[in-house]
Amino acid sequence: MLPHNGYMPNQFDPYRDRYAHRAAGMSRSEIRELFAVLQRPEIISLAGGNTDTSIVSHRVTECVELTLSRYGSEALGYGIGEGHPVLREALTELMALEGIRAQAHQIVVTDGAQQGLELLAKIFCEPGDLILTEGPTYVGALGAFDSFQADVRTVPTDEHGVIPDALAEYLDTVAADGRRAKFLYLVPTFQNPSGTTLSAERRPEVISICRARDVLIIEDNPYAQVRFEGEPVPPLRSLTDEGIIYLGTLSKVFSPGMRVGWLVAPETIRERFVLAKEAADLCSSPFTQLVAATYLTSGHVPEDLEMTRKIYKERRDAMLDALDAYFPPGTTARAPEGGLFLWATLPKPIDTKAMRAQALEGGAAYVSGTAFYPDKRQGRQSMRLNFSYPSLADIEEGMRRLGRVAHQELEFATSLEG
Amino acid sequence: MLPHNGYMPNQFDPYRDRYAHRAAGMSRSEIRELFAVLQRPEIISLAGGNTDTSIVSHRVTECVELTLSRYGSEALGYGIGEGHPVLREALTELMALEGIRAQAHQIVVTDGAQQGLELLAKIFCEPGDLILTEGPTYVGALGAFDSFQADVRTVPTDEHGVIPDALAEYLDTVAADGRRAKFLYLVPTFQNPSGTTLSAERRPEVISICRARDVLIIEDNPYAQVRFEGEPVPPLRSLTDEGIIYLGTLSKVFSPGMRVGWLVAPETIRERFVLAKEAADLCSSPFTQLVAATYLTSGHVPEDLEMTRKIYKERRDAMLDALDAYFPPGTTARAPEGGLFLWATLPKPIDTKAMRAQALEGGAAYVSGTAFYPDKRQGRQSMRLNFSYPSLADIEEGMRRLGRVAHQELEFATSLEG
Repeated sequence: MLPHNGYMPNQFDPYRDRYAHRAAGMSRSEIRELFAVLQRPEIISLAGGNTDTSIVSHRVTECVELTLSRYGSEALGYGIGEGHPVLREALTELMALEGIRAQAHQIVVTDGAQQGLELLAKIFCEPGDLILTEGPTYVGALGAFDSFQADVRTVPTDEHGVIPDALAEYLDTVAADGRRAKFLYLVPTFQNPSGTTLSAERRPEVISICRARDVLIIEDNPYAQVRFEGEPVPPLRSLTDEGIIYLGTLSKVFSPGMRVGWLVAPETIRERFVLAKEAADLCSSPFTQLVAATYLTSGHVPEDLEMTRKIYKERRDAMLDALDAYFPPGTTARAPEGGLFLWATLPKPIDTKAMRAQALEGGAAYVSGTAFYPDKRQGRQSMRLNFSYPSLADIEEGMRRLGRVAHQELEFATSLEG
Repeated sequence: MLPHNGYMPNQFDPYRDRYAHRAAGMSRSEIRELFAVLQRPEIISLAGGNTDTSIVSHRVTECVELTLSRYGSEALGYGIGEGHPVLREALTELMALEGIRAQAHQIVVTDGAQQGLELLAKIFCEPGDLILTEGPTYVGALGAFDSFQADVRTVPTDEHGVIPDALAEYLDTVAADGRRAKFLYLVPTFQNPSGTTLSAERRPEVISICRARDVLIIEDNPYAQVRFEGEPVPPLRSLTDEGIIYLGTLSKVFSPGMRVGWLVAPETIRERFVLAKEAADLCSSPFTQLVAATYLTSGHVPEDLEMTRKIYKERRDAMLDALDAYFPPGTTARAPEGGLFLWATLPKPIDTKAMRAQALEGGAAYVSGTAFYPDKRQGRQSMRLNFSYPSLADIEEGMRRLGRVAHQELEFATSLEG
């Protein structure tokens, strides 16, 4: 077990707690900065993770009116911890489009997939417990796991996702040390931040490696529906319903601001999630749940998703073109076939974390690669760039500004060497 | 520290966790039963805690339209962890009506006050840490505190709330044992479930007793605006801004289904709540936050609250009349001057927990008093009855059914004695 951050049971200080070590910490100030940036109109932010909600915003009033006329006061009262049955039923149909066979009674509705991560950590993790992730990985997962003082480590990955042989070896090494991972957390499709997709060939291998070692898999799948080219790859949960907890969200399909996510858990543990959910906030908003369910069953989802894919593909292409045009030679980025993010790696000796301040001066924002590693040290050459939210013009101008700052950094470094 | 429910770090079982001991537990089955009951139209439920949302439901579509026209895509994207500034500003004005001076930057928006309880326990409590509450106390608080394995104990109360001298003595006894409470959790006005209000005289006493002993006070204040008779009593937070964390909710003023609550914390610890909130779910729904803010600033709140008070007073009176008419002699209940609940205590040897099954057979539901005590054993003679949600006709008929079952129980007990 890790020490409890200096907490002494008999030495009372109500303000000394598990967050004390982070009160002036990096994660916090990075998030603060990011949101502060969004308030400054002169800065073009490629740092966020928002979708383009203008694609669906004109649907909302109609969905609200339908919801209130169909469900009346039920939509405005308390609901049940596992979520409204009508929404859960609609979610089974949404998942079926990806080949996932799940039943409504296996689902627990959460406030975005983020709450699923929190509940997972709460249920499974004592301080010091081992959790494995891809590296880089989703920053929100790191935040949730860290808040329960888990020991998060990354497993080896390449451009096709987790490397099965290396995963098996890693798990065996851990086991030889007398430890076992509580779970392996994966974003297998269009991973945030790297854009990487775990290849179809590797998926069954990863499943059987984890099963043979009793390691639970958490499949976080927010982006798969936002594929704009290439062949769909089946979710892990479509290959097996054993040993997997699946996390879904409507943030990319409908709207992040509705905060509607869900998890699918094996029946033996699903009840624990309901208990944890009830302790956490009694229930997700029946109002937003039913508005979301009304949208899902409205018939508009296919055309809106089609529009989303078309718009994001244009923006990704514009971002890739701008990267070629404005960033220093030696910059690399893989074109993601879907999702919201481009992961760019700049030539040495650029330090993206140090460069953020200059970038803000120069009028553009991004997230440094360091935010996506548990140690907050790796990823210094990389940056995550969002192409789903900014307009084509903002992508062009934002990338131009970032490219200029990167060139300046390189010139400055060269002048020091010279 | 309490044992971790049998969890052994090196003996892996992902399904064995902090909820294992409750998987077949009482709290769970009571909540399940309660919601199952709501699905059966032949049963009149006096068990819930819903408000009469028909009072405000006709406002919702207008508020949604205004929100979307004012804020557009901002309402549908991610927000900041502490909550939307527009809502926080509106909340300071709402609190000012009760004499509370708070600033927007001291507020963290939560998913109902329930999430405030969860975050409190998460931030402050290691397993086995002492939390003090009134007895009986809010069942949701017990759920949140229990989920972090806190050791919850009740302090002495009477019809005017917590007894100051007894509180001081209790705290000193605890201190003599080398322990200190992490906080004292109070619902000082129209307490759920007892309806009790901590008297105005006692409020400064309770504050100074806690301050002298470095015990943080949590003031949970959902019901004060729903006062239908008597003089308002100032919230503790209006008497001091030191050593108090205040929890508010719009569940009673607007709608439970929006899940909009908030907390006001001293600046030194408010940052921890923002961190914990971000880990928990990134942010509360900007959509429901802005719809709620639009409602709060619409000018309709005073008339809607007036209507709410009028309707609830009629229902409370009807419930008290029905209690007199139908319940066995020896039944006692204090008429609450506001809030949503009546706390009735029945003559011995009635056991309200055992009687629930008969009551459901007889077509009516309530919550047994045992649910509101940490040990789930006290309160066997009492029941919580909700008068805010059911119609006057349902109150009359529901109470008639419950009274009949109570009479039968007494007759059966007498026949056993004879």
